[in-house]
Amino acid sequence: MDYRRLDYESLRTLCTQVFHGYGFSEDEAREITDALLAADLFGIESHGIQRLVRYDYEISSGMVDIHAEPEVVHETPLSATVDAKNAMGQLMGVRAMKMAIAKAKKSGIGLVTVRNSNHFGMAGYYARMAAKEGLIGIGMTNAEAIMVPTYGRQPMIGTNPIAFAMPADPVPFVFDAATTVVPRGKLEVYAKRGNGIPEGWAVDENGHDCADSDRVLRNIKAKTGGGILPLGGSSELYGGHKGYGFGMICEICCAILSLGDTANYIYKTPGKSGICHFFMAADPALFGNPLEIRAALSRYLQEIRESQKAEGQTRIFIQGEKELESMARVRREGIPVNEKTLAEIRDIAERAGADTSLIRLAD
Amino acid sequence: MDYRRLDYESLRTLCTQVFHGYGFSEDEAREITDALLAADLFGIESHGIQRLVRYDYEISSGMVDIHAEPEVVHETPLSATVDAKNAMGQLMGVRAMKMAIAKAKKSGIGLVTVRNSNHFGMAGYYARMAAKEGLIGIGMTNAEAIMVPTYGRQPMIGTNPIAFAMPADPVPFVFDAATTVVPRGKLEVYAKRGNGIPEGWAVDENGHDCADSDRVLRNIKAKTGGGILPLGGSSELYGGHKGYGFGMICEICCAILSLGDTANYIYKTPGKSGICHFFMAADPALFGNPLEIRAALSRYLQEIRESQKAEGQTRIFIQGEKELESMARVRREGIPVNEKTLAEIRDIAERAGADTSLIRLAD
Repeated sequence: MDYRRLDYESLRTLCTQVFHGYGFSEDEAREITDALLAADLFGIESHGIQRLVRYDYEISSGMVDIHAEPEVVHETPLSATVDAKNAMGQLMGVRAMKMAIAKAKKSGIGLVTVRNSNHFGMAGYYARMAAKEGLIGIGMTNAEAIMVPTYGRQPMIGTNPIAFAMPADPVPFVFDAATTVVPRGKLEVYAKRGNGIPEGWAVDENGHDCADSDRVLRNIKAKTGGGILPLGGSSELYGGHKGYGFGMICEICCAILSLGDTANYIYKTPGKSGICHFFMAADPALFGNPLEIRAALSRYLQEIRESQKAEGQTRIFIQGEKELESMARVRREGIPVNEKTLAEIRDIAERAGADTSLIRLAD
Repeated sequence: MDYRRLDYESLRTLCTQVFHGYGFSEDEAREITDALLAADLFGIESHGIQRLVRYDYEISSGMVDIHAEPEVVHETPLSATVDAKNAMGQLMGVRAMKMAIAKAKKSGIGLVTVRNSNHFGMAGYYARMAAKEGLIGIGMTNAEAIMVPTYGRQPMIGTNPIAFAMPADPVPFVFDAATTVVPRGKLEVYAKRGNGIPEGWAVDENGHDCADSDRVLRNIKAKTGGGILPLGGSSELYGGHKGYGFGMICEICCAILSLGDTANYIYKTPGKSGICHFFMAADPALFGNPLEIRAALSRYLQEIRESQKAEGQTRIFIQGEKELESMARVRREGIPVNEKTLAEIRDIAERAGADTSLIRLAD
């Protein structure tokens, strides 16, 4: 599939117009756009502008309530449980992480669990918000059931990403990963290329390892069983039970603590997704001098960067580095968008009454 | 190698005598024994009585200071940083988790990071302590560097287990897993059997996948490069960078927040190990009614138990179930111990002046 590169600043303006066109305030439209395009800047296409069509559907169908007023249903100086009332996931995510940050600045730590929200984009976006404030940040979300538990064939857990960020020099440490071996988007990319997928990524409707990406995706859509494997694969041999466990921790923090929908109930009630999130911000000053702690982390990360490489490798990456390096490149060279996404953006922009001349190729 | 089954109660008494013989108080000797044999009860041989010889060496050589008085070097109502002063890991672990629990009961959450400790056994033992009190518990420890970062060949991170426990019915949810694909003990078991190891577990001194367990273990011991792979394997194809990231989160919580030794410095200073831990206890009441939250978790776990099994499988396990089922069996049938460990126990017991007639076969 052909890719074009769109000018970042123009796309940003366009995107803001589109969300404003749906009825969000200008501030809200800017917030959503920032979260959405951050993924493209980071080189994580699966979570960026190519999802606009999904958000367009969820907003148009009323699954996302643009007038939602999230309600804090339980609160302590350290914590809060929020019913998002079907708010846009990005707005809820930013608001909840801001609550966590405010609590951490006042009390040392802030923990916020959220139910009845929607897809919020990249978990790492929210974890980074805390790191920018000198805090340790955690962001998690559950999602539609797609992970089969070890020895199962029915998806019961979401892709369930866990993100963890902490200030360091020269760049923060930011880990952000699905607890499945791969996210669904990666299967779709392989399917589009006509490739099979590596054994150990997914199982068929009978729970057997399956290298046929079309079959897996068809099964997931039709909910006939089968799904993506936890990090570690299909058995305990390579630790599949560990990925399953990390997925469960995410599910617990997001959906159990908030008394929301676990993955197996998400997108099952008409008119709502039911997605749940979890956010934490913690002040390193809980443990000592934040500057000393930051220096200790920076030193250790540098030791890892400088440690011996495997033969044939030239670099060991620290979590979050690739994303920051991509950012500079994408701002310069534009956001890569495939033809299908380009057509979707044009269509959506037209319907929203946005200025389609802002769809500009970067040069 | 032949296995014998030792009567649990007798071994417990013997073990307590041994630790008392080293100079620990009777209470301390009981605490250490309880943590040590819990692993055997849970069927986790690698962390049980077979490690007595290791503790014997570390105590005799002074690496573990039996008279250590751990010092709280930083404290808030929510948190503490403790310098263990080379205390026995199990004693430090129990004491630190008790601190975290007391803080959680008073303030909602307790976070304790510990430096300059020693091997503490199973991370799950401490997480379970919190769950027994109706709290969410986390236990982590770093360890001697054995995990190579993705694209590296020099071990820079420990096996770094992460344990997470939460009250549920009929049994608590308890996840406890190394963030390497396998723990070192598993390589040793394969080596003893004369088998190779599956590709994707470890790399050789050049950083290439290696199925020769002897070579990997020799390299680790000689510190000539090579080590165990993160959960997910050697490349990003199966998410090796994710296991590397989870290992880093553990390293950060244990060794960075406490300003202690990261894995690459552990066992490098004569006379100390430098191992660091992290503990958290959190009250579910931070988020709502603890009984409702417990019920929500129990319901979800039951749905997973009852979800469809892969063809050829009869059961989906919930984290922590296997351990509890093993417990009843081991109490009844005795602790399986191989001939080598049996000889070590006898030798150590004799030197400690313990009653060796307590080494009784279960029948």
